Amino acid sequence: MITIQDIQEAKKRLDGVVQNTPLAYSPILSKQFEANIYLKKENLQLTGSFKIRGAFNKISTLNEMEKATGVVAASAGNHAQGVAYSASYYNINATIIMPEATPLTKVSGVKSYGAEVILYGANYDEAYSYAMKYAKDNDSTFIHPFADDTVIAGQGTVALEILEQLDNIDMILVPIGGGGLISGISTAIRALNPTIKIIGVVASGANAMKISYNKKEPIDSISVKTIADGIAVRDVTPKMLDYTLDLVDEIIEVEDKEIASAILFLLEKQKIVVEGAGAVGLATILHNKIDVKGKTVVLPLSGGNIDVTMLSLIIEKGLVKSSRKMNMIVTLIDKPGSLMTLTDIFKQNDANIVSIDYDRNSVQLDFGEANVTIAIETKGEAHQNLIRDRLKSNGFRFKEI
Amino acid sequence: MITIQDIQEAKKRLDGVVQNTPLAYSPILSKQFEANIYLKKENLQLTGSFKIRGAFNKISTLNEMEKATGVVAASAGNHAQGVAYSASYYNINATIIMPEATPLTKVSGVKSYGAEVILYGANYDEAYSYAMKYAKDNDSTFIHPFADDTVIAGQGTVALEILEQLDNIDMILVPIGGGGLISGISTAIRALNPTIKIIGVVASGANAMKISYNKKEPIDSISVKTIADGIAVRDVTPKMLDYTLDLVDEIIEVEDKEIASAILFLLEKQKIVVEGAGAVGLATILHNKIDVKGKTVVLPLSGGNIDVTMLSLIIEKGLVKSSRKMNMIVTLIDKPGSLMTLTDIFKQNDANIVSIDYDRNSVQLDFGEANVTIAIETKGEAHQNLIRDRLKSNGFRFKEI
Repeated sequence: MITIQDIQEAKKRLDGVVQNTPLAYSPILSKQFEANIYLKKENLQLTGSFKIRGAFNKISTLNEMEKATGVVAASAGNHAQGVAYSASYYNINATIIMPEATPLTKVSGVKSYGAEVILYGANYDEAYSYAMKYAKDNDSTFIHPFADDTVIAGQGTVALEILEQLDNIDMILVPIGGGGLISGISTAIRALNPTIKIIGVVASGANAMKISYNKKEPIDSISVKTIADGIAVRDVTPKMLDYTLDLVDEIIEVEDKEIASAILFLLEKQKIVVEGAGAVGLATILHNKIDVKGKTVVLPLSGGNIDVTMLSLIIEKGLVKSSRKMNMIVTLIDKPGSLMTLTDIFKQNDANIVSIDYDRNSVQLDFGEANVTIAIETKGEAHQNLIRDRLKSNGFRFKEI
Repeated sequence: MITIQDIQEAKKRLDGVVQNTPLAYSPILSKQFEANIYLKKENLQLTGSFKIRGAFNKISTLNEMEKATGVVAASAGNHAQGVAYSASYYNINATIIMPEATPLTKVSGVKSYGAEVILYGANYDEAYSYAMKYAKDNDSTFIHPFADDTVIAGQGTVALEILEQLDNIDMILVPIGGGGLISGISTAIRALNPTIKIIGVVASGANAMKISYNKKEPIDSISVKTIADGIAVRDVTPKMLDYTLDLVDEIIEVEDKEIASAILFLLEKQKIVVEGAGAVGLATILHNKIDVKGKTVVLPLSGGNIDVTMLSLIIEKGLVKSSRKMNMIVTLIDKPGSLMTLTDIFKQNDANIVSIDYDRNSVQLDFGEANVTIAIETKGEAHQNLIRDRLKSNGFRFKEI
């Protein structure tokens, strides 16, 4: 087990390189939930996530021989960037094994720090196995993303910063993937302020740590599937479970749709980009999975590396869910003027048409009918009801999709 | 004209209410442009923009009688929120006149601060005229969005914070709409550190201030059209032109597509949401409209209130432009297996299909042909060229759209 001294030493190593990220009070969340809610913005960290803390601490402690033979890591994400950045800082070789399907932006992100990238394997597990073998074959040091005490001590520096930035914290909600962040944070907090409640949050699609925590034995998932790719870890490492059982008060899980709404909230209301893993803590609050009333709560937003395509999808779904967009198929009589009557209803009721598609070939249609698939911008539930009424009173059949 | 004392007094009034926003060094921009680039994050300000500074300062200085009769403003955007928030702080009545087409999110944003909203007029000018009349009829105080010295003094507090946060600044790039922000900032900088170069930035679609500055006389635009709605100001107020001529070194303009790429850069690389007006300064740097090499440069990111639908559009266009997405119409023989041959090419070359639409009814097609409109995710220019080659070598005709 690591100690508070390990974390304090890590902090000295990180000093002047890794950013001391802002801990920002959120007036809007605090008001809405009658609490004092603070956001620890690790999405603004160098490389876009807290992962650089552990990687930098680990690489700092390598001896000259180890530095000369370079480091190896397997990751398609934040750990890869943390290792690449830290290796480049010490001017040592880094080889990152990434799964073959890794998006180009992530590959070039890592390459931009001077690391060598090898694309290998159909998934993370294959890349991981190859990286272990590659490190052995080349006498290099493999940097584990979480199951390494020096890495964990680096992640724990997040908590030292938080405790310097704020007093009287009641609760902290920490994302759990492999368990590196929460082990580091908890070790620091238990040593310095043991009364703070530490709650771990997993994604429902990758909840092995929660199940293992409740059963008190490591149980791996058969598969993982979540938009929070930063915490999509399939297997529970016994050592990480020991840390978690020892230090964490409770583990909560949140669904992908709850995570998505938290990402959208942070984007719209807080003006920051946070990835799925970083948004799980807020998701528990937004969806009333925890009572924070009257409490001072800290949410470490662990990272901001979310693909913009995913962000677009989240916005799109969020707009539909919050009644700001409406998608429907309207069946109309296939004759001149029908479409105009329909579009006139939208115009009269101030609903902007985003996209439209006209089809009279569907076999589900009677002869002489046509289907219009249409997307409109609306101003909320009342506005949508008005449009539904108008469509009905004008004799249109429609189905919302 | 206002003085540095006016701004210093404003700062005292704002203290403890308005946020002292972070001035963050950007490693990635600094490296890319061989400069020291700092971002003043007014997008993280209360109400999502710097506008609360001017509004709060103005409302703070009203006497008891004026407070009792309430305030009126015309705005669909950041000024509306600033006035509404400030009025609610002093527990006085605020009436905000918004154009009829104002999106519901903006209306409810203002209402959430307790302000009364009146939807009036087809555009800002009509809302503005009505607001003036409404204020007069109701003996209320009209709060101008920029042409008011007390408002300008409030905006100037941005510069006081920057000068406290950083020494040795060479240059500051300030968005210009009506001119309130740059007048306030320039007044403070000229008084405290006159060697800093002050550059104003307008959107090409709303460049009246730049034209007026160059001709040294106020020339209004006939119309304005830009995605930077926060600085889409049509007319040049003579008083604001005087400030600008007196204090600003140069004015640069940027196109909408340049602003969009700056918004996307901030989203992807800096993990923050910035609206068009707030991104114009960065747009000048990204698109080499100014040489910053070796300089210490401050970019006030004036606000973050951008509609998420617009954000989605910017992401979409940005993906196409950076070769991460490809939209095309492929013409194929309308027979069993044709579509499979096509989709197989994408599979073999690792291009993910985002959307697909099959049409054999277009009159531009020969009999026996069909058009497939398809969007695919790609990994850059080289990957796109590979796909183009494969399509050609397999005999497909296609047109990129």
